[in-house]
Amino acid sequence: MFEKIIEIGLLFDFYGKLLNDKQYSAIEFYYIHDLSLSEIGELLGISRQGVHDLLKRSENKLFAFEEKLGLVKKFSENKEKIKEILDNTDGAIKTLDEKNFIQAREHIMRVNDIAIDILEIGQEVK
Amino acid sequence: MFEKIIEIGLLFDFYGKLLNDKQYSAIEFYYIHDLSLSEIGELLGISRQGVHDLLKRSENKLFAFEEKLGLVKKFSENKEKIKEILDNTDGAIKTLDEKNFIQAREHIMRVNDIAIDILEIGQEVK
Repeated sequence: MFEKIIEIGLLFDFYGKLLNDKQYSAIEFYYIHDLSLSEIGELLGISRQGVHDLLKRSENKLFAFEEKLGLVKKFSENKEKIKEILDNTDGAIKTLDEKNFIQAREHIMRVNDIAIDILEIGQEVK
Repeated sequence: MFEKIIEIGLLFDFYGKLLNDKQYSAIEFYYIHDLSLSEIGELLGISRQGVHDLLKRSENKLFAFEEKLGLVKKFSENKEKIKEILDNTDGAIKTLDEKNFIQAREHIMRVNDIAIDILEIGQEVK
């Protein structure tokens, strides 16, 4: 369940604004504010079962947007690459402090490669 | 006009798959394959005026997606930042070659800051 919350949360951050008002509220109440189906039902003036169905439909819409656009996946990939850049800047600083210039240079070259790689990924969707 | 082609092209890359088939084809034929309104009309079996209206509607949909999600803007911002990272890795390599280690260090720190900045922008949309 925890993984699903994270996944829906991410999809909602990206595509939430493409949902209609009711779908948006259902996801927000359930996944962000952690309300129960009954509580959401009261707020939206629909039955518990109605909330259940509404949530299912809204989740499916979010998954469908990602299936079509794949932007969450792309952002996540970029995020991993940026973390790798940070690892390498750390490495560069450390080796530079130790006057290990050859290794510092290697770290910087690696940062350079990753940055180019990100720009190329950008081209695809760009 | 040239700027508009670039802009629609970008929006189409991001959100094109959210258009319906006819809207998708109209934009693709006009902006990517550079066909005339009459040619597109023949291909889609509608009048020249019909193509004009279809294009207008499709463009408006693309602008509306960007208005809601702003992902083209975010990707463009990231791209600028990645270019700045590349400028600084260049700077770091050059100053390292000249054994100007203090300046090399500054370039690496700048890369580090930009990378953290990108991760934080990422947090907003996630």
